[in-house]
Amino acid sequence: MITGGGFSIIVRLEMAAGTGFSQVAAAIADAGGDIVALDTVHVGRHAVLRDITVNLRREEDGEQVLAALRNHPGVRVVHVSDRTFLVHLGGKIEVQAKTPVKNRDDLSRVYTPGVARVCLAIRDDPAKAFQLTIKRNTVAVVTDGTAVLGLGDIGPEAALPVMEGKAMLFKQFADVDAFPICLATRDPDEIVRTVKAIAPAFGGINLEDISAPRCFEIETRLKAELDIPVFHDDQHGTAVVMLAGLLNAVRLVGKRLTDLKVVVCGIGAAGVACTKILLAAGVQHITGVDRPGILHPEAAYDNPVWRWYAAHTNPERRQGGLAEALDGADVFIGVSGPGVLRVEHIQRMARDPIVFAMANPTPEIPPEEAEPYVRILATGRSDYPNQINNVLCFPGMFRGALDARAREINEEMKLAAARAIASCVGEDELNEQYIVPSVFNQRVVKAVSRAVAEAAYQTGVARRDAPHVLRD
Amino acid sequence: MITGGGFSIIVRLEMAAGTGFSQVAAAIADAGGDIVALDTVHVGRHAVLRDITVNLRREEDGEQVLAALRNHPGVRVVHVSDRTFLVHLGGKIEVQAKTPVKNRDDLSRVYTPGVARVCLAIRDDPAKAFQLTIKRNTVAVVTDGTAVLGLGDIGPEAALPVMEGKAMLFKQFADVDAFPICLATRDPDEIVRTVKAIAPAFGGINLEDISAPRCFEIETRLKAELDIPVFHDDQHGTAVVMLAGLLNAVRLVGKRLTDLKVVVCGIGAAGVACTKILLAAGVQHITGVDRPGILHPEAAYDNPVWRWYAAHTNPERRQGGLAEALDGADVFIGVSGPGVLRVEHIQRMARDPIVFAMANPTPEIPPEEAEPYVRILATGRSDYPNQINNVLCFPGMFRGALDARAREINEEMKLAAARAIASCVGEDELNEQYIVPSVFNQRVVKAVSRAVAEAAYQTGVARRDAPHVLRD
Repeated sequence: MITGGGFSIIVRLEMAAGTGFSQVAAAIADAGGDIVALDTVHVGRHAVLRDITVNLRREEDGEQVLAALRNHPGVRVVHVSDRTFLVHLGGKIEVQAKTPVKNRDDLSRVYTPGVARVCLAIRDDPAKAFQLTIKRNTVAVVTDGTAVLGLGDIGPEAALPVMEGKAMLFKQFADVDAFPICLATRDPDEIVRTVKAIAPAFGGINLEDISAPRCFEIETRLKAELDIPVFHDDQHGTAVVMLAGLLNAVRLVGKRLTDLKVVVCGIGAAGVACTKILLAAGVQHITGVDRPGILHPEAAYDNPVWRWYAAHTNPERRQGGLAEALDGADVFIGVSGPGVLRVEHIQRMARDPIVFAMANPTPEIPPEEAEPYVRILATGRSDYPNQINNVLCFPGMFRGALDARAREINEEMKLAAARAIASCVGEDELNEQYIVPSVFNQRVVKAVSRAVAEAAYQTGVARRDAPHVLRD
Repeated sequence: MITGGGFSIIVRLEMAAGTGFSQVAAAIADAGGDIVALDTVHVGRHAVLRDITVNLRREEDGEQVLAALRNHPGVRVVHVSDRTFLVHLGGKIEVQAKTPVKNRDDLSRVYTPGVARVCLAIRDDPAKAFQLTIKRNTVAVVTDGTAVLGLGDIGPEAALPVMEGKAMLFKQFADVDAFPICLATRDPDEIVRTVKAIAPAFGGINLEDISAPRCFEIETRLKAELDIPVFHDDQHGTAVVMLAGLLNAVRLVGKRLTDLKVVVCGIGAAGVACTKILLAAGVQHITGVDRPGILHPEAAYDNPVWRWYAAHTNPERRQGGLAEALDGADVFIGVSGPGVLRVEHIQRMARDPIVFAMANPTPEIPPEEAEPYVRILATGRSDYPNQINNVLCFPGMFRGALDARAREINEEMKLAAARAIASCVGEDELNEQYIVPSVFNQRVVKAVSRAVAEAAYQTGVARRDAPHVLRD
């Protein structure tokens, strides 16, 4: 059972003449439903047909509402639709022509024979694909469906609704054309080969929901072998938005990044990316914790990522578990699982504890439990303040990279994105409940894309000539 | 130099006050240009700024027109745009969300957390991907760029404008969402592997502009290994529309398919497909001609396709070249190259010769030369009557296959499509100059999709339950 927003149903009822609507409404409310819309479909002599949209707190409440309606005198349940399923019917995105093909003249320009001259121009100068084709504005959203949301390995078909949703957000927030590529293979060699094979039509590759440790190898190889940006959003999107939140959090508590003691809990894809961006941002004191406890340079790990991690962190050579790691720490960054963090742990931290409990869908500690003991709390959830949401990053990140025709997305571009996101919370707005902007804050994409494109030019990875044509 | 429709330029002129427009227009006409639109951009005291759209017969004429304008007193050429290139800027298609994501409630339905329930529904029943994702309506247009239009092997980037054009036509004519997959490999194994790997998000695969003989192997293997339709348009699209034209042509000359003697010239991808559909339609007497002359069952060919061909055609065991093949033949089907067919050849044919000279962009014989000697002439060109154009087939073919949720496109579905196209030319309309409908005839897609879906149900390859929900 998945909880959280977005559960509502539309019930079509045939109500016999004389059946009171207020009684029906009361029955729905008693069963746990919340009526948010009412449409009268047909009024007959003997009955009225009505569509009632009901929001529910939990999926189970739907059955109770329906049972109550079925038992209600004078009411017949004609049909039940689930609004979430309705919006998915037939898919959520479509491929549209930018201009209509109305007549022979149009046809001969967009297709044969006119298109041949455009083809030859690109054959003679392949860089022209960035001007004359969708490559200029198109990103592949690539997954193998092995690590989807909190659902795990559900396969490429079942992952497709998420990739479609992502494509919607790319378009809506940043006017980027994104298309889902759901792979029927989980072999890293095969994934690398496939993405390379389809790369010509794309200006960027967004890797999504690919499980660790395969995601590291796949991203590293694709970055090396392709000349367009490759960005594993689960790693770097999370890291960028986390850093944005942290920049504002330290402003608030009056600490400096260089002095900060940070504990990262959960050293998988996102944990490693968070650590790397923290190091790049100037944080010097990071300790990683995973199942074996604090990762220590003298321990032997099978996981090569943990070996790398232990060698580059834990400057005090601490040993022990999460409690020992958090002794005197300023910041807890959680990308692990529910119940990992306890109040006693927080009580060992330095003054003004900053806790980012980002496990999805259930944070490392229930927010209500943590709140009395922390100065600043952020989670991955939309129903609490300070949501660390990738949507703040990926649209503007790719918009900026595409605008600059960047060869890659490098660490400087990620840092620039984090600073840009942080800057969208004004000095006068900043407080413990508001360290990251809303995902619907329209200034975010502009700020991020501009900062990312500028960083691309400054680091020499931009291929477009004129920096002055950056989007306003 | 590519000839044919679609060449036009937009010239921005600054005309000094007192410069007569009629003289300028005359200069353009004298240089070979045809003014089709005029926009006044700005009227100043000393000069007027005008955008003049000029159609040209040939690309070279553009230079002459510009030279004439540059020499014209009182005229300054400010800027020249090529309309064909303009329409390609940034690509011709985009990926749109079907519904907007306006607020938190929308976001939680189309993306996390609401989308999770949809993902799980598909994980539990993968067939639901056809209801709840873009798979229901989406086709991959797959090419390796090895046989693009008449241009040959120009590579995947240079092929992209053609695939985008095709995607536009898919959407405009049949509301099919098509997306270009341009492959950076030409190895058949790798192409098969890649297409299989990306198949989960697609309801059909349209192979395009892949050179023979690799196209045969790639199509055969993909058809065997995928459970969605795989259709190489260069082969079967041409064959379907050719057969549609031939069905109407034989009606006109009063001959029966079973009695027909047909010569196919050019035994590559399209020639083989034309032959197979003719055999399936009941034509019994087919002779193939290629570089070695008439393909003969006792000859030894390196090309395995020719060996197959020779074993299944040429019932009279004829020997010789095109002239000998055409002795007493009723129909010439040309998918070869310019200049192959001569008037002396046509003169050896039976009464009422039917000639389909479909080589692109230049037919096997210039239409003007052939016309006095044939009863019916068809070409691939839009500037002569009876254009055999794939656009008549592929949109309706995939519309019908997707509507029926077909596992494949089989010979019966192709025959049904050909008959449906032919049926769009009414008994009262049919004449020597009008054997196939216009590509802009809106009845064609409906007729084709309905016939294809029906054939899918009749042959047991449809997976959608209710035939009554076929599109009107």
